[in-house]
Amino acid sequence: MIVVKVGGGKGINYEAVTADLAELHAAGQKIVLVHGGSYETNVLSEKLGHPPKFVTSVSGYESRYTDRETLEIFEMVYCGKVNKRIVEMLQAKGVNAVGLSGIDGRLLEGTRKDAIKIIDSEGRKRILRDDFTGKVEKVNTGLLTLLLDNGYLPVVTPPAISYAGEAINVDGDRAAAIIASSLGVDQLIILSNVPGLLRDVKDESSLITHIEKAFVEESMSFAEGRFKKKVMGASEALQEGVKEVIFADARVDKPISAAIAHNGTVIS
Amino acid sequence: MIVVKVGGGKGINYEAVTADLAELHAAGQKIVLVHGGSYETNVLSEKLGHPPKFVTSVSGYESRYTDRETLEIFEMVYCGKVNKRIVEMLQAKGVNAVGLSGIDGRLLEGTRKDAIKIIDSEGRKRILRDDFTGKVEKVNTGLLTLLLDNGYLPVVTPPAISYAGEAINVDGDRAAAIIASSLGVDQLIILSNVPGLLRDVKDESSLITHIEKAFVEESMSFAEGRFKKKVMGASEALQEGVKEVIFADARVDKPISAAIAHNGTVIS
Repeated sequence: MIVVKVGGGKGINYEAVTADLAELHAAGQKIVLVHGGSYETNVLSEKLGHPPKFVTSVSGYESRYTDRETLEIFEMVYCGKVNKRIVEMLQAKGVNAVGLSGIDGRLLEGTRKDAIKIIDSEGRKRILRDDFTGKVEKVNTGLLTLLLDNGYLPVVTPPAISYAGEAINVDGDRAAAIIASSLGVDQLIILSNVPGLLRDVKDESSLITHIEKAFVEESMSFAEGRFKKKVMGASEALQEGVKEVIFADARVDKPISAAIAHNGTVIS
Repeated sequence: MIVVKVGGGKGINYEAVTADLAELHAAGQKIVLVHGGSYETNVLSEKLGHPPKFVTSVSGYESRYTDRETLEIFEMVYCGKVNKRIVEMLQAKGVNAVGLSGIDGRLLEGTRKDAIKIIDSEGRKRILRDDFTGKVEKVNTGLLTLLLDNGYLPVVTPPAISYAGEAINVDGDRAAAIIASSLGVDQLIILSNVPGLLRDVKDESSLITHIEKAFVEESMSFAEGRFKKKVMGASEALQEGVKEVIFADARVDKPISAAIAHNGTVIS
């Protein structure tokens, strides 16, 4: 069994991702796909006159400021547009995919941060309270196993659900990491619109091909912006028993098979 | 087991619907909920500069003209906004709901109409070809039973999927009808923002309380606009073995319990 995360950035080749998934699925591989939708959420937010805002936590991580209106837009894009598009593409290729958000069946459960400390644009510390974000702490592996054992391919998307039953925006990479460790898989593949972790973010040929598990925290210094969360997810997955995390390119042909064959950044 | 359809019209009291569902679920009733989202689809379509268009078939039924752009908006509202809102409300009340579209697990499968005959605004017959609509012919009851038997409450929404694997807009009432007959349930409850079938659509006190199964086709003459599809769905469900179809009011307290107790239009 493998867990594959495909990013929501610009340029993702969903056609290649789903074609590759269909081949692997036909060959008997059990797969859980996790996806994002950040780029299209920005586009829809702009169109609806509620432009996206990003905040930086005091520890330096960037995340989407998610008030209730943003959460609805987020759900329309992630659960409506992107999830159904991927499920439809898989169905057209003969894969019996089932799309699920983290709310469905309490698939991804966690704590809502009732206040987050951020650094504002002028460098001052501020507390944000009306934010619906959190972190996945528990995975309903029973529901995933039920579907996998009956031949379905789960296509999972944020949001998650808080213990109080509120939808919460969670990071997709870290959600994929906890899904992978909870299911006890050997490989977690994180696809995005870059070839992997780069020494120089402006130079795609500066790919780091291998990182020792013990040095994953140090490799954080190469990660910029949203990639920091990928490295954090990788670290969490490896700590919890996943053997390999592979950052790979979602823009190429057969992106998952290429990642399984160690094209990208392998952390093990 | 019962199947409940809740409309997507203005004024639907989802809080009351989900509270009632939670009580029935806690009492051990197995329930499949089917929902719409037409009103909010109109609102979003306007906001996104792709205003809704409705067409009338030569046989007099009105439906949403669904080009690919409309289908995406439709999915954002039905699968993203409305489905996740209902699932979240149920989860907050302790019900382990799972939202599914008809695409997921090929839950609702049917034929895409490759051409529909319509009457245009000037009364002329025309053929429409780029329309993604169809009719559900097959229900994946295995997936519903799998979830129901494991304590989940399925929350089902259009679109359906064509045999070729395309998402298709289908009528929610008729989808609920075929779900009810395929599962072999005794009662199908169709809730909307009116008390039931009215003799005079402008007078809510003109409720028809009972219709003999044999006369359901004749009762079509009282149905206007979108209600015609509800009557058609009722007729199809009864023909396929459902014992009772109840049209009832979704704006009242305990709307489902009230319908089970025969408040509304009972067709049997």
